[in-house]
Amino acid sequence: MAKYMDVHHGMKGVTAEQVKAAHEADLAIEKDEGVHFERAWADPESGTVYCLSEAPSAEAVQRIHERTGHKADEVHPVPIIV
Amino acid sequence: MAKYMDVHHGMKGVTAEQVKAAHEADLAIEKDEGVHFERAWADPESGTVYCLSEAPSAEAVQRIHERTGHKADEVHPVPIIV
Repeated sequence: MAKYMDVHHGMKGVTAEQVKAAHEADLAIEKDEGVHFERAWADPESGTVYCLSEAPSAEAVQRIHERTGHKADEVHPVPIIV
Repeated sequence: MAKYMDVHHGMKGVTAEQVKAAHEADLAIEKDEGVHFERAWADPESGTVYCLSEAPSAEAVQRIHERTGHKADEVHPVPIIV
């Protein structure tokens, strides 16, 4: 298991309710891939959403996001954490 | 005070020691601007570093990063957190 930061662009005007609903949809099925989405941060102005997860692979993170209808634009392993 | 996610690109091959040293340099002077850098995540492969902070403004975050020699490429307010 490793930590991943994935990034969604083009989400201008996204609301807290939308981010919460998307996060909950991910949480509902994340176990299918052994992923856990820990937290998400969103900037509605630039339309950027960052999701921090623990997962077996970047592909596993993306498969969950794809199934819930919000494929990430980038999925980065983040092995360095301070 | 608000939360910010800032992003540094072009950091390919960055090491844990370098990220730790940069973070500690920020912590040493962050109070000058009322900023607190809470955590940083780095992907040495793509050369991306994400820093989460609490600060009075994006400009305050950037001023600390500039003084410690690592200006951020993006500083995003992240008012939505789940």
